[in-house]
Amino acid sequence: MTATFDMALIQRGARLRRSPYFDATLRAGCRSYTVYNHMFLPTRYDDLHAEYERLLTGVTVWDVSVERQVEIKGPDAFEFTNLLTPRDLSKCAVGQGKYVIVTADDGGIVNDPVLLRLGENHFWLALADSDVLLWAKGVALNSGLDVELCEPDVSPMQVQGPKSKEVVRRLFGDAVLGLRYYWFLETDLDGIPVVVTRTGWSGEVGYEIYLRDGSRGVELWDRVMDAGADLGIAPTGPSDIRRIEAGILNYGIDMTLDNNPYEVGLGWQVDGDKEGDYIGREALARIAAEGTRRRLAGVEIAGGPLDLNMTRWPVRGEGSGGGGGEQVGVVTSAVWSPRLKRNIGYAMVPVAFAEIGTRLRVATPDGERAASVVRRPFVDPDKEIPKS
Amino acid sequence: MTATFDMALIQRGARLRRSPYFDATLRAGCRSYTVYNHMFLPTRYDDLHAEYERLLTGVTVWDVSVERQVEIKGPDAFEFTNLLTPRDLSKCAVGQGKYVIVTADDGGIVNDPVLLRLGENHFWLALADSDVLLWAKGVALNSGLDVELCEPDVSPMQVQGPKSKEVVRRLFGDAVLGLRYYWFLETDLDGIPVVVTRTGWSGEVGYEIYLRDGSRGVELWDRVMDAGADLGIAPTGPSDIRRIEAGILNYGIDMTLDNNPYEVGLGWQVDGDKEGDYIGREALARIAAEGTRRRLAGVEIAGGPLDLNMTRWPVRGEGSGGGGGEQVGVVTSAVWSPRLKRNIGYAMVPVAFAEIGTRLRVATPDGERAASVVRRPFVDPDKEIPKS
Repeated sequence: MTATFDMALIQRGARLRRSPYFDATLRAGCRSYTVYNHMFLPTRYDDLHAEYERLLTGVTVWDVSVERQVEIKGPDAFEFTNLLTPRDLSKCAVGQGKYVIVTADDGGIVNDPVLLRLGENHFWLALADSDVLLWAKGVALNSGLDVELCEPDVSPMQVQGPKSKEVVRRLFGDAVLGLRYYWFLETDLDGIPVVVTRTGWSGEVGYEIYLRDGSRGVELWDRVMDAGADLGIAPTGPSDIRRIEAGILNYGIDMTLDNNPYEVGLGWQVDGDKEGDYIGREALARIAAEGTRRRLAGVEIAGGPLDLNMTRWPVRGEGSGGGGGEQVGVVTSAVWSPRLKRNIGYAMVPVAFAEIGTRLRVATPDGERAASVVRRPFVDPDKEIPKS
Repeated sequence: MTATFDMALIQRGARLRRSPYFDATLRAGCRSYTVYNHMFLPTRYDDLHAEYERLLTGVTVWDVSVERQVEIKGPDAFEFTNLLTPRDLSKCAVGQGKYVIVTADDGGIVNDPVLLRLGENHFWLALADSDVLLWAKGVALNSGLDVELCEPDVSPMQVQGPKSKEVVRRLFGDAVLGLRYYWFLETDLDGIPVVVTRTGWSGEVGYEIYLRDGSRGVELWDRVMDAGADLGIAPTGPSDIRRIEAGILNYGIDMTLDNNPYEVGLGWQVDGDKEGDYIGREALARIAAEGTRRRLAGVEIAGGPLDLNMTRWPVRGEGSGGGGGEQVGVVTSAVWSPRLKRNIGYAMVPVAFAEIGTRLRVATPDGERAASVVRRPFVDPDKEIPKS
């Protein structure tokens, strides 16, 4: 198996779901899909470096309908949703969103959705790849709280890149330009109902358009493409290069149910002055007091360009003679950054190996390479995505 | 889009997990994978009809590690597990398994695993494609029951087909031949720890070998292949043709969280004399009393061989003039049966359209075709998989 191993996958049967934009992505020449939340997620239309360049300099459109929503409504929706996360939702106004983590009783991360508060007692969680609807229904069972939980007909697309602002201005008017990070507008595009948010998974200027009527996906897609035609708008997959540069984590690999927020650098999500109970509170307080045993460190890996890793690469500490010691952890994500001209990524290692400057050895498919722990995010640390 | 549309998918990053048998499946020339429970599931090595013939006449090996387990242990494990399903687990002995459904509060189907009872208070649920670990953890939260829930290091493979019996006899001795349907043995193969069950997803004679040490997957794979070499053993994907012939349902398409057991023909799972509470009891009793509005009917679709459907095909009732009326439902699964020389499948339709002999119109990618409701299973109704 090489680092460029491409896995040909063929859908069998109608089990995996298609997005409302699916026919448009096929028509646009999408060359590969992955599977996320039981649906197809378009991952590339062009060379990955070309798509990255386009994201950095122009405007790109991603079909991220796979960000399925859990909708929480009912008289106790605020109280229930506030139970699901260590973030203090009393600080989240109607019209505002937040990047949140959903935690289990042991502090493990169930998901890291973007939460939107559409009403006092009306929330959406735009999910990463795990069945949070089942989690929420299980939690609700004996909670004594009166809530309605469902997956509504809502399908986001991302419009990302420096020219995205002009595209959404043309579509939705000047009102959208005033959106602060993580805030949103409920509006429509000639009758196509949408929510427009100032969010994204790119570290660039970006917006998401949440379509509220799945029958109108291709129509919305075409409107967005038309609005950006003279700006060179194009569909792409989410850019793993750009999100790693920005220090953004990918649920399912950089963090899972087996990780607590402190070890992956999301300790800031645990709101110290949050009042009332939430799931995981006790475990997280204990972990915070005791400290974590391992940490997701930023790493630079020496040598020429590596393709995005397809498996977890073993990591060893550097032995006293410059050789490698025992395996101490794994690289979760790693990729070549064209503008940094370095291989960057994350490694889950014991805290003793997570200090800036620690030297490591990484077993890549092309052989072992030297690596060192560096600060993340890797690009524009001052422009890090706001934590609000 | 044609019915033979093949979708090329390329994994990006290490997010999707690989099975302990993954390297062996690659080496064996696996030509396509799908994604199931966040893992790769090998779906074909050869022509699908050739694989089907092999299953009917020989012995096939399927990497179904994607059947992830939820393990339930602890002092209240029996009581907790019995809460999750409408089947009465007091009738399940240690050493016995059962095909069960897991139901939500509204009677919706969360999953349809094979349950194994390894001890008085020790269970595994071998899952279809949904995150039941999250469901179970949510349910456990306020249940007041003392249970430990995890995903253990357990990875099943299926050995299916008339010659499977000889293969497992050679591997595990005569003891395995005495297994009744859904019973199992805990044993080992020269130190490789396994559980061998008399189960499968094929309607043919078959077994599953649950590997209990993921580091030994390729070793086990090679041992199984060696044991059947002179019998023409070969790796294949699960056969959609054969499972539809047998009337077996595929979770995620033939039934979902939006379906109750009565409408998909799994009403027999609701154990009328089960004592005590379980999740969904009240809703299921109400549905049973009121009757369902729709039903998953067996259908035959006229005309030449259809490829397995890639989307849900619209179904209309036959109008008075022989033409079609309004859309009344969808085909969930359909495929050409080589031995029946007919297209067979399932359609979710209102009960008025689900009576045997009802004439329907199905919109296939090649145009509308006549169809009629028939009894399922389609093959050997007397040899239907035992319901115990």
